[in-house]
Amino acid sequence: MTNFEETKKQFILPEGMIYLDGNSLGPMPKNAPDKIHSVLTDEWSKMLINGWNDAAWMFQPEQLGNKISRIIGAENDCVVVGETLSVRVYQALSCALRETRKRKIILTDSGNFPSDLYMAQGLIELLKNQFELRICEPDKIHENLNSEIAVLMLTDVDYRTGRKHNIAKTNKKAKDQGIITIWDLAHSAGALDLKLRDWDIDYAVGCTYKYLNAGPGSPAFIYVNPKRIDQVKPSLMGWLGHQSPFDFSLNYTPGKGINRMKIGTPPVLANAALAASLRIWDMVNMTDVRLKSIELSERFIGGLKNTCPTLKLASPTDAKKRGSQVSFYFENGYPAMQAIIESGVIGDFRSPNIMRFGITPLYILEKDIDLAVDIISNVLNKKLWDKPKYKKRKFVT
Amino acid sequence: MTNFEETKKQFILPEGMIYLDGNSLGPMPKNAPDKIHSVLTDEWSKMLINGWNDAAWMFQPEQLGNKISRIIGAENDCVVVGETLSVRVYQALSCALRETRKRKIILTDSGNFPSDLYMAQGLIELLKNQFELRICEPDKIHENLNSEIAVLMLTDVDYRTGRKHNIAKTNKKAKDQGIITIWDLAHSAGALDLKLRDWDIDYAVGCTYKYLNAGPGSPAFIYVNPKRIDQVKPSLMGWLGHQSPFDFSLNYTPGKGINRMKIGTPPVLANAALAASLRIWDMVNMTDVRLKSIELSERFIGGLKNTCPTLKLASPTDAKKRGSQVSFYFENGYPAMQAIIESGVIGDFRSPNIMRFGITPLYILEKDIDLAVDIISNVLNKKLWDKPKYKKRKFVT
Repeated sequence: MTNFEETKKQFILPEGMIYLDGNSLGPMPKNAPDKIHSVLTDEWSKMLINGWNDAAWMFQPEQLGNKISRIIGAENDCVVVGETLSVRVYQALSCALRETRKRKIILTDSGNFPSDLYMAQGLIELLKNQFELRICEPDKIHENLNSEIAVLMLTDVDYRTGRKHNIAKTNKKAKDQGIITIWDLAHSAGALDLKLRDWDIDYAVGCTYKYLNAGPGSPAFIYVNPKRIDQVKPSLMGWLGHQSPFDFSLNYTPGKGINRMKIGTPPVLANAALAASLRIWDMVNMTDVRLKSIELSERFIGGLKNTCPTLKLASPTDAKKRGSQVSFYFENGYPAMQAIIESGVIGDFRSPNIMRFGITPLYILEKDIDLAVDIISNVLNKKLWDKPKYKKRKFVT
Repeated sequence: MTNFEETKKQFILPEGMIYLDGNSLGPMPKNAPDKIHSVLTDEWSKMLINGWNDAAWMFQPEQLGNKISRIIGAENDCVVVGETLSVRVYQALSCALRETRKRKIILTDSGNFPSDLYMAQGLIELLKNQFELRICEPDKIHENLNSEIAVLMLTDVDYRTGRKHNIAKTNKKAKDQGIITIWDLAHSAGALDLKLRDWDIDYAVGCTYKYLNAGPGSPAFIYVNPKRIDQVKPSLMGWLGHQSPFDFSLNYTPGKGINRMKIGTPPVLANAALAASLRIWDMVNMTDVRLKSIELSERFIGGLKNTCPTLKLASPTDAKKRGSQVSFYFENGYPAMQAIIESGVIGDFRSPNIMRFGITPLYILEKDIDLAVDIISNVLNKKLWDKPKYKKRKFVT
């Protein structure tokens, strides 16, 4: 059993703040400063260039990847870390398009994160519109899966509402139709009890700064199904994905297995924060996390239903169809969220009218949820948000 | 006048080590740990999600880019930072190929860094071999510049020999032929007195972990000629390159100017180290750096010519044709370099027979050069390298 009182102790959380925004940026693990300081002062400053060998910096992409594998229910040696999520989306999609023959449609939904759609649009433009990006509503995906579709590219959990796909079912239906599948796990890794080992997904990508708590802009990851990785032709052929990078050959030969998905030089300092955060996950069982997330989410929804009966849930009411966040529609969501934040509960706002709250059992306990419910309902019931100062927009809303 | 005694004090360098490998990985600036610690404890841990606004994390790509602009002799607002150099090479080349019409040849040379060639090869394969990568010898570039060439893609300074192109001349010749130009400044930024403002280059890319001293795997940069940036169609269309990222539109509209070249979420912790290192450059004039680099390189070459007359220079003898490194051919270069390293001079080795030494005036003084000459000649003249322990290969050679 995961001890969530203990995991909470592993994070720095400002006194008096209830942080319900871990779906956007996780808090700092207590061990992160020491770990990074050690990489700076014991590795970079002392070993200098030798750190690539002596501190095994060069092997961080796969070593950290294997730690993430456990969290997403995947085998070893099928995940590498590095670059940004947008680049990893492009990498997965460009590999998938290299495998296609006659099919020309990339199917996605309007709940996908915009950057995923933009990366697909850019790739399609580069390929002179040989492919089409078909964007349907999330609940219309199944009826659009047919033998015309080359690639299904979805984000599992909707970043606004927390609406969750059923990866197992949708992926199977797609694979049965001969469709290549790409899943963006940005809001799933570290939040849900994922079983990549069982699902026969082709590609998955994700970030580490949300539920995995590795710091702002921390590196992304990519998973490739181990059954097919040796047939995958990379298109972002970076030198670290080469079979023998230090031969400095003029021609690319893909590295063994998942190694071919490495691109550029590993971001060693950012990886130090990731290594620190991943240590906490050694204390954690993902089934426990998912159960606790549902329990806390139900408590949060139930509490606000009682205290703010007019608040309209934007997330699915069925916990099985929800990720690890709870969102509400509220016309004055922007100023309301600013007032809630000033009262000590940190959530965020997404245009035009969504208030989001991330539910993260690693550092949110029942008592935090209860207090958050009190604070939010106080702001809403007393209309504390109805002040000019809360209406001024910030750059990052 | 740049005070190099003062700049040297800004770095941590292990006692007794003469570090001649700054062309591969720069040493740690003294202010880096404090700067990073402050970002961890004053920003991430306290501001959490608010750091994107309150600590202006979101504007790091262009703010750090403007600092780099000065170092490479470019205007403001034409450089952004983020991702890895390989990704930036791909980004520049894919933008360039979107501009081409009938021309189908990408011209490069065998002195280009392999990752640049691999990224081009991957892109060409993705585009079903509509384009050809033509690799000629470095001294054959000019005669190969003709109206068939779509893109000229070169690394300014050869990573093995330090042989340098003449960007001004070669770029002009290419532009006169209607060729789009891409320059990789990996071994030039922070080493040479670059004048991007004057040269009418189309795209330039570079890394920050070599002469710019921002730490292992620190972020890359991309420059786009400000005269044409508003016409550039990105192909890596990341959400942060969108005109209004926080509108979360389903369709991409390129951001204003260089902003469109941003891709994914900024790596805030890695950027903290970059910010620390870039502060040192405020003390530095690039003309002084280049003059001092030539002076130190001549001293090094001259010293070794006297003490080890059999050592064969792999770098150009003419300082104007050399970057900021000095390389020698030596049949037993691998064990020799291990023995030199054990004697306190850090250089490195590149297959099959090249010993490289980086000359970095910011933290290498005349006396360091003289001592390095003594140590290297002692190892070579006494054949101290001829021991089994020096012959065992490491992963990163």
